[in-house]
Amino acid sequence: MKQAKTLNESICDVRGMLCWGAHVGIKSKRRDLALIYSEVPCDISAVFTRNQVVAEPVKISREHARDGRAQAVVINAGNANACTGEQGRQAAEAMVTTTAEVLGIPRELVLVASTGVIGQRFPTEVVVEGIRRNVAKLSNIRTAASFVANAILTTDTFPKEAAQRFEVNGKEVLLAGVAKGSGMIHPDMGTMLAFLCCDLAIERQLLDRTFREAIDASFNMITVDGDTSTNDMALVMCNGLAGNHLITSPDQPGYADFREALFGVCTDLAKLIVSDGEGATKFIEYRVINAPSEEAARRIVRVVSDSTLVKTAFYGRDPNWGRILAAAGRAGVVFDPELVDLSIGAEQMYQVARKGRPTNQDLRIVRKELSEAHLRLVLNLNQGKAEATGWGSDLSEDYVHFNSQYTS
Amino acid sequence: MKQAKTLNESICDVRGMLCWGAHVGIKSKRRDLALIYSEVPCDISAVFTRNQVVAEPVKISREHARDGRAQAVVINAGNANACTGEQGRQAAEAMVTTTAEVLGIPRELVLVASTGVIGQRFPTEVVVEGIRRNVAKLSNIRTAASFVANAILTTDTFPKEAAQRFEVNGKEVLLAGVAKGSGMIHPDMGTMLAFLCCDLAIERQLLDRTFREAIDASFNMITVDGDTSTNDMALVMCNGLAGNHLITSPDQPGYADFREALFGVCTDLAKLIVSDGEGATKFIEYRVINAPSEEAARRIVRVVSDSTLVKTAFYGRDPNWGRILAAAGRAGVVFDPELVDLSIGAEQMYQVARKGRPTNQDLRIVRKELSEAHLRLVLNLNQGKAEATGWGSDLSEDYVHFNSQYTS
Repeated sequence: MKQAKTLNESICDVRGMLCWGAHVGIKSKRRDLALIYSEVPCDISAVFTRNQVVAEPVKISREHARDGRAQAVVINAGNANACTGEQGRQAAEAMVTTTAEVLGIPRELVLVASTGVIGQRFPTEVVVEGIRRNVAKLSNIRTAASFVANAILTTDTFPKEAAQRFEVNGKEVLLAGVAKGSGMIHPDMGTMLAFLCCDLAIERQLLDRTFREAIDASFNMITVDGDTSTNDMALVMCNGLAGNHLITSPDQPGYADFREALFGVCTDLAKLIVSDGEGATKFIEYRVINAPSEEAARRIVRVVSDSTLVKTAFYGRDPNWGRILAAAGRAGVVFDPELVDLSIGAEQMYQVARKGRPTNQDLRIVRKELSEAHLRLVLNLNQGKAEATGWGSDLSEDYVHFNSQYTS
Repeated sequence: MKQAKTLNESICDVRGMLCWGAHVGIKSKRRDLALIYSEVPCDISAVFTRNQVVAEPVKISREHARDGRAQAVVINAGNANACTGEQGRQAAEAMVTTTAEVLGIPRELVLVASTGVIGQRFPTEVVVEGIRRNVAKLSNIRTAASFVANAILTTDTFPKEAAQRFEVNGKEVLLAGVAKGSGMIHPDMGTMLAFLCCDLAIERQLLDRTFREAIDASFNMITVDGDTSTNDMALVMCNGLAGNHLITSPDQPGYADFREALFGVCTDLAKLIVSDGEGATKFIEYRVINAPSEEAARRIVRVVSDSTLVKTAFYGRDPNWGRILAAAGRAGVVFDPELVDLSIGAEQMYQVARKGRPTNQDLRIVRKELSEAHLRLVLNLNQGKAEATGWGSDLSEDYVHFNSQYTS
């Protein structure tokens, strides 16, 4: 079920954006350092982990992102730089300072992100030297974006990219992004990183509001509220080089298209992260419909898609739908189970519960359908009009095997 | 690591308590029906699932337990009688009515509990006929209690019993209990049932308050708040036949001993449930000390002990302590990670983090210690005086294998 989307366009196709990804020696062989740079300062929105234990790069980036402006991001994989104390703090500072110096921009315009193992001494010299060597290679050739997409990976099995084009005042705009995160089979597995670049001119507060809404409907629907790692970060940078009239309000022409593209690219990246779940053999779409509120629908999607029992049942092609209702019942949402309908399947959907009770559906047929790699579930609460969609993977023996050996 | 405690005393040794467990045919071979009966009506306290999806027997027992009085409980395993609608409702009613009729007691004094698969038609006739046949066998011989402990099991691998004796006004009092629940490796696995019998005379409200406190410190520390199944139930029945002066306030002689016995028996049963975790290879005690509040300490214990990553790391003897801090960080408790110390081990404890950073501890030595079956973890927040303890198991490939095949 692993999948990588073939794209014609990437972050380096966004006007004024240059990037590079290299192997500098944090990992033994794979690329481990990435740089993204805009020729002009960008309006940005950045969202960070809500974990109490926060990696050093997140502390600095949170500070630097506060004014909604940035021009470059430096990212390393292989060491999370979390629980590393003063040494780690200095390392993250050095990454920022070096990047700013070599690029000749103010250090406040540089963000930094890390992903990898927590609580290990950070190899500052290797990384700083790597930044110095690689800034000169910043480029807008297709390979450069592919190097970035690869250099931010940890346990991922494929790079994750998505892009969409749209038009504003007759100007072509490109929104493109890269992401990493392979352990989202259980939400606290590891870091999720996403970097989106766009040449749109948009007012900063509006960008921020729209990005947060897009994240709630995409990356936050593959994780449980609050279940963030020490290093999570999602960033969108808009450099305005498309030449459109600055968008300052949702009513303006082009805003709706940008919003749709932003939701689309975030959702594509989120689904790619789920597809790459460790040990995952299935990709499952969870829809809750006719719920009393969107928040209620989202809570149920999150709890059901994160239930170990639901995930192991899907892994085993077991149409054990009682587990799905029981998981929904503990989502903290008040509902009447005797109104609920439930369908599961792949291409073909089968109703397994009606009004909270079994239907006459032959479960052997459902079991056969569950052997597909892409599954769907629709839980109809029949008590409201709101809905939500989320995505998850199953849970296999391989996940356990893999995660019992991580630092070994 | 499976363990069964050899006890000299059981629920049938409590004065006036009779019981029986039998095979009536819900399961193919194992015992599946249990009866517990007191010769006189009891003061009781009962705690039920908080899940929105509630099994039919829970609805009836909740109603019948409201007045704090009961005299008999009838329990079946093999079918949860949840998501079964009107047919299930009538089945649970029939279990109560039949038990009351044959015993010659008011139906309001009968409670009912079920555990097993959700959403399957309930075999009413088989169970009702089984009750009729087995009431006559109610007994206080040791074997009867053992039959009860066995008849309430589902995926458990051993029966779970605990007992303690104490004295009140020179009267010997016995508190004894049975429990089931083998899937508590992940809290929503399956039903947890616990039935405690005691011959103490104690005022009903005081019993209720004390039982709820005991549950918070025992059964609720092997589960995550709210993560209950459709069928969970814990019950204590006190018939007063010990002949002590009625205990009406916490200051009275004997109350402290009762409280200690109640906490002790509940904790013993809770730990037995964890020991029988599906696919579990390790039993782990989690302590959070010097926390800002007891609630904060408990939240952290629950989140850490329920973390898939922490559990798989323990399974793999991987001293990946960053996962423990990261899990603590998402417990919804505000704390300063740079004050935190962490020790893990078995007999011998090893400090792996000091003030949120790695120590010089040789992790190969820790890894060797982690091959033990009983492990301990102490997370010292160094920011308060409260503490909490909880228990959990690890997560193995066997758990996944088992749970992907449940209804097959």
